[in-house]
Amino acid sequence: MTSLFSKIIAGDLPSYRVYDDDQFVAFLDINPIQRGHTLLVPRVEVDRFFDLPEPVLQASMTVAQRLARAIEQAVPCNRVGVLVAGLDVPHAHIHLVPIQGTGDLSFANARPGIPEALGDLAIQIQTFL
Amino acid sequence: MTSLFSKIIAGDLPSYRVYDDDQFVAFLDINPIQRGHTLLVPRVEVDRFFDLPEPVLQASMTVAQRLARAIEQAVPCNRVGVLVAGLDVPHAHIHLVPIQGTGDLSFANARPGIPEALGDLAIQIQTFL
Repeated sequence: MTSLFSKIIAGDLPSYRVYDDDQFVAFLDINPIQRGHTLLVPRVEVDRFFDLPEPVLQASMTVAQRLARAIEQAVPCNRVGVLVAGLDVPHAHIHLVPIQGTGDLSFANARPGIPEALGDLAIQIQTFL
Repeated sequence: MTSLFSKIIAGDLPSYRVYDDDQFVAFLDINPIQRGHTLLVPRVEVDRFFDLPEPVLQASMTVAQRLARAIEQAVPCNRVGVLVAGLDVPHAHIHLVPIQGTGDLSFANARPGIPEALGDLAIQIQTFL
């Protein structure tokens, strides 16, 4: 079954896209834990993060670092935190979340984002990449 | 200032060590979110995860994958989740946490571990590495 993320990657579903290369796509989470919450998704459709091929795991950190630096510039924060759970969508992905305190990094904080604000933010993050 | 983790890496503080190489050390979190909660720590003392050199970030995934597979064998779970926050100890580290559901991946679940059980578990994870 094609995952929700594969549909987004293919452009069959809309997203607030931030980044795109031959291995990865990144877009804003539409239910952000914090403003700037971004999903980094490998194009390859593998459910569990640690089942990804090792080179993909390694490459994900290169892209995550670049994204984190751009997110930090767009959204003032102490740092960009990382979450990988993946029990919602069976397509491995990394949550990049700007945080001030440890309590900020919790799925319990997720709230629907405002479409217009998400669109503006995606463009802003792109400018810092 | 030497971090708590640098003292553990140097052996000046005890830990339930699981893994050790020239770049990384891994040991059990003494306040686990879930049983099997392991910290993967680069030897280099850098506060923020994404300030680590890119090769260290990449290499961390190779070790994390190996650890995750061992943790999964020692602690039955749906998968091993990942958390990077680092606001507690100013020395970059990756939390590897066996989870069943998304709610399991929260610092709010942290409880002190029982020393004897932690010791036994560390040995068990090592056998699967």
